[in-house]
Amino acid sequence: MRSLLLVAHGSRRAESNAEIGRLAARVAERAGARFDVVEHAFLELAEPLIPDGVSRCLERGATSVSVVPYFLARGTHVAEDIPEQVDIARAAHPDADIRVTDYLGTSDALVDVLVRLADEA
Amino acid sequence: MRSLLLVAHGSRRAESNAEIGRLAARVAERAGARFDVVEHAFLELAEPLIPDGVSRCLERGATSVSVVPYFLARGTHVAEDIPEQVDIARAAHPDADIRVTDYLGTSDALVDVLVRLADEA
Repeated sequence: MRSLLLVAHGSRRAESNAEIGRLAARVAERAGARFDVVEHAFLELAEPLIPDGVSRCLERGATSVSVVPYFLARGTHVAEDIPEQVDIARAAHPDADIRVTDYLGTSDALVDVLVRLADEA
Repeated sequence: MRSLLLVAHGSRRAESNAEIGRLAARVAERAGARFDVVEHAFLELAEPLIPDGVSRCLERGATSVSVVPYFLARGTHVAEDIPEQVDIARAAHPDADIRVTDYLGTSDALVDVLVRLADEA
């Protein structure tokens, strides 16, 4: 049973964090049969943090977790901080298949989204 | 003649800013006939700033500029700072059609990109 964990930076603004929760709900709607469970987590400043987000996925019956970094640039957060938090989750759940996907900013499909945004304006 | 101005936050890390320049080049490739000119600009910390980015589009022959905020959350930058900078550009170029599109994070298509990223991992 596969799960998707959307990971955002986290903000001091509650509304920004709530936006991530709503985004995760939209992802769940669109994931169809590909992901049975969709959760979200934050790198810092908001809860749940990444290890707790992984635990939630597993508690809901997932055996694999795809951690998707909702980040636009490959900074320290993507390169080091997220993998470090995922390693903590792996140590807590050695039987689960926990992997980190490419971050959002690298996606080719993102390029088309930008053109479409401009075209619809 | 239409142009697309991709606007990112700007970073102290030169590599992050260079990543935006490369992204704009990929957008230009994919924009096809829809946008004759694609440029990028930054809200702060890096150059060109937004008014200069708009000027570059117009210097290259554009008569309209679609400013696309490359931002994931609707914070102060999206709600206030970018429109403020665009107003400065409008005052400098009263004959140009300069508009701000939805920011990236609101796009429905983004949801599909996230599912696809996870699915390919």
